[in-house]
Amino acid sequence: MKKLINNPADVLVESLKGVAAAHPELSVDLETSVITRATPKAEGKVTVVSGGGSGHEPLHGGYVGVGMLDAAVAGEVFTSPTPDRVQAATKAVDRGAGVLHIVKNYTGDVLNFEMAAELAQMEGIEVSTVVVDDDVAVQDSLYTAGRRGVGLTVLLEKIVGAAAEEGQDLAAVTALAQRVNAQGRSMGMALTSCTVPAAGKPTFDLPEDQMEIGIGIHGEPGRHREPLAPASDIARQLVEPILADLDFAGPAIVMVNGMGATPQIELYLMYAEVAALLEAAGVRIVRNLVGNYITSLDMAGCSVTVLKADDEILRLWDAPVVTPGLRWGA
Amino acid sequence: MKKLINNPADVLVESLKGVAAAHPELSVDLETSVITRATPKAEGKVTVVSGGGSGHEPLHGGYVGVGMLDAAVAGEVFTSPTPDRVQAATKAVDRGAGVLHIVKNYTGDVLNFEMAAELAQMEGIEVSTVVVDDDVAVQDSLYTAGRRGVGLTVLLEKIVGAAAEEGQDLAAVTALAQRVNAQGRSMGMALTSCTVPAAGKPTFDLPEDQMEIGIGIHGEPGRHREPLAPASDIARQLVEPILADLDFAGPAIVMVNGMGATPQIELYLMYAEVAALLEAAGVRIVRNLVGNYITSLDMAGCSVTVLKADDEILRLWDAPVVTPGLRWGA
Repeated sequence: MKKLINNPADVLVESLKGVAAAHPELSVDLETSVITRATPKAEGKVTVVSGGGSGHEPLHGGYVGVGMLDAAVAGEVFTSPTPDRVQAATKAVDRGAGVLHIVKNYTGDVLNFEMAAELAQMEGIEVSTVVVDDDVAVQDSLYTAGRRGVGLTVLLEKIVGAAAEEGQDLAAVTALAQRVNAQGRSMGMALTSCTVPAAGKPTFDLPEDQMEIGIGIHGEPGRHREPLAPASDIARQLVEPILADLDFAGPAIVMVNGMGATPQIELYLMYAEVAALLEAAGVRIVRNLVGNYITSLDMAGCSVTVLKADDEILRLWDAPVVTPGLRWGA
Repeated sequence: MKKLINNPADVLVESLKGVAAAHPELSVDLETSVITRATPKAEGKVTVVSGGGSGHEPLHGGYVGVGMLDAAVAGEVFTSPTPDRVQAATKAVDRGAGVLHIVKNYTGDVLNFEMAAELAQMEGIEVSTVVVDDDVAVQDSLYTAGRRGVGLTVLLEKIVGAAAEEGQDLAAVTALAQRVNAQGRSMGMALTSCTVPAAGKPTFDLPEDQMEIGIGIHGEPGRHREPLAPASDIARQLVEPILADLDFAGPAIVMVNGMGATPQIELYLMYAEVAALLEAAGVRIVRNLVGNYITSLDMAGCSVTVLKADDEILRLWDAPVVTPGLRWGA
């Protein structure tokens, strides 16, 4: 295992120390692994909390800041944060107008956020939840009943965060989150496995001449393995299942995302392939992201996310955002 | 070789197509591999051109935009762009107030930019040049007489780009570039080799239990190889040579940069180690970057850059920048 780490058991807390040192605009609680804004949102506004296992950076901690999340709760690598930590984050950021939980659809996350929501509600905090389930690759998976939550989470956190920032109420913010989730789909692939620090060896074996189509962000099995193919063929295998699942004709926000070890030169090349396929199918790409936004440690590979857009979604997308992972307009 | 590409010979042009598709605010000339701003700077302002071999993305094309570069010239992977292309970029962006060339110190780049400057001057365009040579690892290297130009290039392009944007003249912009170069130092290391697409195999062999300290951004040999060590030890081996080379006591801008295949969770962990060492040595970190800013294709590893700052440098650092790779304040 080749990693820039000290003791594998300390990776999360030591990385959070770096986040704290690099970003004075964030508050990092090393006890609970909760990242919040150093300057909280005004009283009376909805706040937005997300979280999950670590290893997907910049998701979620890198999306805390003005215009996006109020708090992110980090579990150990690929391990859901416990309910008490999610509750602590919820309580810390509540400004009296309710809290939205954004949860990727993995069984552990869903259960723990559900329990945290109940605990928070017992203390008088109104909580609503959106479970993101955008991955068209497989119906059920290693850690998930139903579809997995993957790349769409990034876009949803941006758009919903903007709505909360401008003062929309909890019902409106929740409805928007449900709508974004309904209008977005993703699919990913891997060239290599990732290596969890505590395991010390690759999560799975993928021979030098093979790739896996439909992989999950923890290395869960995808649809199938096959011989390495050109980027144009890979793009087709990611785009076609997305288009088969939902009619995307019209304006869309598209993300080509790297899994952590894929260089930008390859991601741009993939974006050219993906954009050409989508546009040939009548999708008009009006905004895009190309880079490492939701990763799987040191996995090489990529994913494609397509979100059907409209004027309201685009207005919220373009609103100012100031986070370590996404920043524009301010 | 596991990469998201089609034909290895087409990587550059196909990646540039993706840049063009993703960034309507840029103009990409696929014939010359020159990236410029779609909306040129106002007449009468100094323009700034950089470039070099590809494979270091987001450097340089990802730094074209308001507040930073006016043009970037991309050579093939790890291959200097030819003089005629650099000349074409220079001519395309000249606004009558002279052009600054920012050149990383590699023999091919230095010669080709020099020839391009002469060609441009023959056409009446005033050109001045700064050669960045911040790498303290080795005195001469595989492709370089003198020190190599590495991470400081990113910081220099930001700061000098801001000075040109606000209307400083060519003499002032050039003097600033020389000053930034004199005040900054870098050093890097690799956990793995990179693989050049056209070569199809790793540039060098680095056994599973070894790392290389002082590596160049093309995989040029560094100072030495040694057994894999904890991040705290790696940080010390990068920071100490930098501090031994220049007195950095006082305010500084610090970058912990990933080589392309290093996940963000490890870069933040390294930043915590680096920041602690620097601050113990009297360096006060007032701004920082943690991420993939100057890469070596799919190499795993990192580099550290330290720039001695002052009020003027910080003012220019904080000025608005709108590029694919760096964006704030607008």
